[in-house]
Amino acid sequence: MYDAILAHIGQFIDLEPAEVDYFTSLLRYKMLRKRQYLVQAGDVCKYDSFVVKGCLRTYFVDERGGEHVVQFAVENWWTGDLYSFLSGSPAAYNTDALEDSELLQIDQASLDQLYERVPKFERFFRILTQRAFVSAEKRVIATISQTAEERYNNFIRSYPGLDQRVPQHLIASYLGFTPEFLSRMRKQMATRKS
Amino acid sequence: MYDAILAHIGQFIDLEPAEVDYFTSLLRYKMLRKRQYLVQAGDVCKYDSFVVKGCLRTYFVDERGGEHVVQFAVENWWTGDLYSFLSGSPAAYNTDALEDSELLQIDQASLDQLYERVPKFERFFRILTQRAFVSAEKRVIATISQTAEERYNNFIRSYPGLDQRVPQHLIASYLGFTPEFLSRMRKQMATRKS
Repeated sequence: MYDAILAHIGQFIDLEPAEVDYFTSLLRYKMLRKRQYLVQAGDVCKYDSFVVKGCLRTYFVDERGGEHVVQFAVENWWTGDLYSFLSGSPAAYNTDALEDSELLQIDQASLDQLYERVPKFERFFRILTQRAFVSAEKRVIATISQTAEERYNNFIRSYPGLDQRVPQHLIASYLGFTPEFLSRMRKQMATRKS
Repeated sequence: MYDAILAHIGQFIDLEPAEVDYFTSLLRYKMLRKRQYLVQAGDVCKYDSFVVKGCLRTYFVDERGGEHVVQFAVENWWTGDLYSFLSGSPAAYNTDALEDSELLQIDQASLDQLYERVPKFERFFRILTQRAFVSAEKRVIATISQTAEERYNNFIRSYPGLDQRVPQHLIASYLGFTPEFLSRMRKQMATRKS
């Protein structure tokens, strides 16, 4: 059950066997059925969640009722509403499962203990967050400077295989397109290729 | 010279006097005149830079020659091309000074030594990056879900006073507007208020 998360962490820090035991003792296993919520907007996001298996989306509902996909998370990604998790404030985002999913979760109190007892985890989460920040910054740039086709192609490259797992209207939402626009664009791209 | 950076760090971690001395010994003082580059795209960003005084912008030039402001940095902000700094790859962004500016800089080798000798700094940079990530994620959401006026108002709230320090066409660029559109919108907002 812990193979994937330990391999993931092992890319960044080396853990002694006792540290592995301590870390895994803090984790909580969670199964979500397809369509089940992990976090609903307005609730506090109590766990940082690592995806062992499955696919989730985080989305935001604007004042006009429009849904906007903020993030997809598949195997080896962490998910949740980070602001809510860190601050204890109500989540602005919803996260639900697009497939039956298996997660490993850690709560804030356990994470604080982990930082105290195994400070290497500060390093792990620092590096992880720096990578996430760089991605988020690239996405801002893409949204304001790239053409629709460039953004779609970058999405396909950044999330290999995801376009086969996730409904097209959610990919459209992630990219800030209408579903009709994405469908039309994909047809044009296919025509040009053939 | 170190008051601002030490007060800033003191919000997140407590340092012993010897740790303060060690940390400040790793810093490099840098003055930039208005219009001078801190980093140019294509060069490696060798320093993470804390703004003691002044204002800088980070921007990106797209394939069609369009400039897009990614970030502004004023007093107590860190700036640079984080991806380039962390990876040693050439910077995708340019950073230059919008006002005469004073910086305190640290290079990657010094930062690695600092993490080894004072692991609390892992915590400091973890927290700092988590906050930056939350902001970047909010900006993605704003770009795809908010009206132009909402985005402008949020900008004014997030960067108090910056609209008085920075030319309007750069604020337009940061928000993904044309300068003409921002100017028209500000006039309409002013008319409604009066």
